[in-house]
Amino acid sequence: MYRTHTCGQLRLTDVNATVTLAGWVQTVRKFGSITFVDLRDRYGITQLLFSENLNAALEANPLGREFVLQVTGTVNERSSKNANIPTGEIEIVVTEFKILNKSAVPPFSIQDDTDGGDELRMKYRYLDLRRNIVKKNLELRYAVGRSTRNYLHENNFMDIETPFLIKSTPEGARDFVVPSRMNAGQFYALPQSPQTFKQLLMVSGYDRYYQIVKCFRDEDLRADRQPEFTQIDCEMCFVEQEDILQMFEGLVKRIFKDVKSIDYTDTVQRITWEEAMWQYGNDKPDIRFDIKICNIKFPQHTFPSKQSQSALIDGANFGVFDDAETVVAIAIPNCSEYTRKQTDELTEWVKRPQIGMKGLVFIKCNADGTFKSSVDKFYSEEKLKAIAEAANAKAGDLILILAGTEERTRKATSDLRMYMADKLGLRKKDEFKLLWVLDFPLFEFALEDQDGGGAGRWVARHHPFTSPKPSDVETMINNSPKVENLDKYLEHPYANIKANAYDMVLNGNEIGGGSIRIFQKELQQKMFAALGMNEEEQQHKFGFLLGAFEYGAPPHGGLAFGFDRLCAILGGSETIRDFIAFPKNNSGRDVMIDAPSTIDTKQFEELQIKLDLK
Amino acid sequence: MYRTHTCGQLRLTDVNATVTLAGWVQTVRKFGSITFVDLRDRYGITQLLFSENLNAALEANPLGREFVLQVTGTVNERSSKNANIPTGEIEIVVTEFKILNKSAVPPFSIQDDTDGGDELRMKYRYLDLRRNIVKKNLELRYAVGRSTRNYLHENNFMDIETPFLIKSTPEGARDFVVPSRMNAGQFYALPQSPQTFKQLLMVSGYDRYYQIVKCFRDEDLRADRQPEFTQIDCEMCFVEQEDILQMFEGLVKRIFKDVKSIDYTDTVQRITWEEAMWQYGNDKPDIRFDIKICNIKFPQHTFPSKQSQSALIDGANFGVFDDAETVVAIAIPNCSEYTRKQTDELTEWVKRPQIGMKGLVFIKCNADGTFKSSVDKFYSEEKLKAIAEAANAKAGDLILILAGTEERTRKATSDLRMYMADKLGLRKKDEFKLLWVLDFPLFEFALEDQDGGGAGRWVARHHPFTSPKPSDVETMINNSPKVENLDKYLEHPYANIKANAYDMVLNGNEIGGGSIRIFQKELQQKMFAALGMNEEEQQHKFGFLLGAFEYGAPPHGGLAFGFDRLCAILGGSETIRDFIAFPKNNSGRDVMIDAPSTIDTKQFEELQIKLDLK
Repeated sequence: MYRTHTCGQLRLTDVNATVTLAGWVQTVRKFGSITFVDLRDRYGITQLLFSENLNAALEANPLGREFVLQVTGTVNERSSKNANIPTGEIEIVVTEFKILNKSAVPPFSIQDDTDGGDELRMKYRYLDLRRNIVKKNLELRYAVGRSTRNYLHENNFMDIETPFLIKSTPEGARDFVVPSRMNAGQFYALPQSPQTFKQLLMVSGYDRYYQIVKCFRDEDLRADRQPEFTQIDCEMCFVEQEDILQMFEGLVKRIFKDVKSIDYTDTVQRITWEEAMWQYGNDKPDIRFDIKICNIKFPQHTFPSKQSQSALIDGANFGVFDDAETVVAIAIPNCSEYTRKQTDELTEWVKRPQIGMKGLVFIKCNADGTFKSSVDKFYSEEKLKAIAEAANAKAGDLILILAGTEERTRKATSDLRMYMADKLGLRKKDEFKLLWVLDFPLFEFALEDQDGGGAGRWVARHHPFTSPKPSDVETMINNSPKVENLDKYLEHPYANIKANAYDMVLNGNEIGGGSIRIFQKELQQKMFAALGMNEEEQQHKFGFLLGAFEYGAPPHGGLAFGFDRLCAILGGSETIRDFIAFPKNNSGRDVMIDAPSTIDTKQFEELQIKLDLK
Repeated sequence: MYRTHTCGQLRLTDVNATVTLAGWVQTVRKFGSITFVDLRDRYGITQLLFSENLNAALEANPLGREFVLQVTGTVNERSSKNANIPTGEIEIVVTEFKILNKSAVPPFSIQDDTDGGDELRMKYRYLDLRRNIVKKNLELRYAVGRSTRNYLHENNFMDIETPFLIKSTPEGARDFVVPSRMNAGQFYALPQSPQTFKQLLMVSGYDRYYQIVKCFRDEDLRADRQPEFTQIDCEMCFVEQEDILQMFEGLVKRIFKDVKSIDYTDTVQRITWEEAMWQYGNDKPDIRFDIKICNIKFPQHTFPSKQSQSALIDGANFGVFDDAETVVAIAIPNCSEYTRKQTDELTEWVKRPQIGMKGLVFIKCNADGTFKSSVDKFYSEEKLKAIAEAANAKAGDLILILAGTEERTRKATSDLRMYMADKLGLRKKDEFKLLWVLDFPLFEFALEDQDGGGAGRWVARHHPFTSPKPSDVETMINNSPKVENLDKYLEHPYANIKANAYDMVLNGNEIGGGSIRIFQKELQQKMFAALGMNEEEQQHKFGFLLGAFEYGAPPHGGLAFGFDRLCAILGGSETIRDFIAFPKNNSGRDVMIDAPSTIDTKQFEELQIKLDLK
């Protein structure tokens, strides 16, 4: 061992002990004839004191930033203590030192507020990883993983490894494929998730399975997507949706406790997908703040069950509202005194191309109970009051109203809601609010071709193994999936089938999702057929699963958490890359090792493939 | 929840409770008007009793093997108890039952002694996994993983994920490669191990890293190799070999304790590679039994330090020994009374092509102190006695002597040693003996081309990141790796350089291995050059590592355990496939999902590759 203690270990109680430390030189400060060095390792920083008698040795062996140093010396009480670090009351009076390795001057400073840009830090990721802020992220990741494993272990889950070299069954996302040398002309695929394997494990009776496992998707990388990412993947036998919700809100609460010392004692709220879309404008609402969207015009489609509230705006001859498909309002707390400049700014904000609205109507709910709006000439005070009531506005609030086509308006209102919440500091980094979103539609209708499967057909919203709600099974079995009139797909019975599926949302981010699975062969075949797969395709891609369902498949369900994102949110960030040791950039490249790269002629020959570049 | 209890949970204390169970029908036995069903789940088996009043329901819904059943009933004390299972004192008197799913008749019986052949069981692996014997293996695997994680956590190791899509740097084994769609013409490789990444993490100061991680090698599959396999991968900073040996024999002892309830209190023995080769004929000796090889002729080469013992056989004019390069003896305990038939059988055994010896000489050390040998006419009793003493033979032992070329003879003696031990029951399944093998040669000399790197050159015995012993660094730096005369490569100074490398051997199997790494840029470059890599290649393949070594790389080292094999040996098997949930066959195929398989034209187009079949 090159050390007797770590750089985070020594305290006042160790004074006078002879110790040996090893670590990296963080700083070198010379004061007259003595030199102070901060020595850093994973565990902390310890101050070293080189007195005058070592000056000759230091001159012969000058120290620089990031040098690897081994020192022996005596623990001494500091005269000027540093209360900010645990070792701040002591220092080591060095008697001997040895430079174990030198360092060139790093291309950026190894500090929280580094001067290194993103590209430089990624190229020298091994130096970036030395920064305390990055280390804290990886430590948090490790803690989340450990907490997860402990909770699942205590609940009888078994970690079972599933294979990485599997079969390509492109469905939605693209597979990464791996040419097989031993089976020339054939390819493995890397798993997009262990979905079918974990279901087979349920068929095999393993009862409760989990894995923290890498998954792969060859997608064009939007910001903050990675071609390889990690899931906490779980599955349970003999359960209903309620069992799963309780088990996994338990897991997240345990993680809060272990990792953030938070007792999350609140009941985890639940809303349906339909409610989420109408109340928040999206299916992963941030409920840390209580601003809900109020629909003040009859919704045209998608939600036939929704009651009309048209009376509030009808009959005023305000063309903008009368002509719009959708008109929605949100009440922003305590902003009734916004100036003209401020409301103008908001109007400009919603008119930006990313938001794409034509304008913004506002109603100020004055503190004295009166109302003032940008549409006073169309709406009486009484009507404004009714709208305010519908929007749950209090005196002092500012109501913002958007009008337009349904989908865009709903999205814009959702964005505006988040924008205002950020502006008002309502999205607190240290506050965590969980939410279950339930009852997703089982199908979406692909008007355009999304994945090469053709246009004008049903696609699985979650995945093809998700079961419909028990009450919708008959609807699914008794109707042909064929849509005769593409314009009226919403009238097809399949459009209203709800799935036994659930998403867990944390602070406005989907951190996990899953479903109760189909476990009956016939229903699974019906599902595949609904997605446009003929019997031959079904057998080729999923014959093993259909086969397994013939031999006593139990009811089962599960979910998967996005581990990278969960860690990021717990770390107060929304950038998953900061929580991955060696991430790839937006082109899927690892710029540090320079991958992907070319391969040898011999490798092509052995794999019996060649390039076919366009 | 479909159940109130599992099938392994109920005891006499639960009598009279109303319970609901769910599971699989193991057996159905009808006795007159009542029916007994054994219901199975992961946790155990519970006996169900269907009385007469359920006969009509059973006739309408007949039960079959592997049906998924939910029953409600009352816990009852059994009249005829089964002491072999924990639930054997109770049964459930069924009041209601529901068939949750039917099952076709399984293609083989779901029992420990199944009638299913290997191929059938692999095709229906989801049924094979239901067998108790397979489940026990996976449970053991989970327990080994959990024990490992706990021990490493307590010792400050951090689980840090390294990437799966990396760069192809073929070196020894072949890489699996993954065409990149976003970087057309370029390929990722799947990691053969996270070697360079874990070293970078040490450079980054993470101090103690571990991962239980999948690795990939595209090799022709010898028996019991898998293209994807799992490693317990570990690395530590600021350590010397001794620190690593202690840390990881501690890990294995902890696993013994947690998983097998064995207190391994013995000191873990250590021998050098050279001793292992001379004393046991191979570098992973099984030391559960104390039979060592005695070299009774001067060893010609490889081990110049070895003392001659030629006096024992010289001067007898026995041509077989006199002309042989190597003559070695082993003393087999308590076999001096072997009959002619038995010794003839042994002679036939060593003459088989797999062993390839020309014959076998034996000396019987009779109980009365006399000797009887097959070469009595060449060797006096006195000489036989001297040989017996050299071979550590006692009265009652049978000495077996092989002669021939060094390498083959050593290998044959090692095989013979194991064969005799198996025959005599000396390799006990429930006995575990650990051994460290140390001081491996740093290099091997490839007389023939092994990996496309050309013939007549040095290859790294462990890998190119292994450091030489400190005392050999000078030899390495001050000599050119060039071998002028291929026949005399053993005389080159590199042939005697020893590595700071170590293997852990358990019961004759290498379960783990590692090394202290090179951490100086210049030495690493010298190593790459010794292996025949020019500077351009070094930069292309390992530029990032050489770069990292410029910025304060600390001394570090580590090792990796073969997780599959460790589990197999702990489970009393040497077949790793039995300890993998979804293994591949010897052609690298998963016959259950039928992978690898063909991919779509669209996938070829997107990846810009095509087949080039010979």
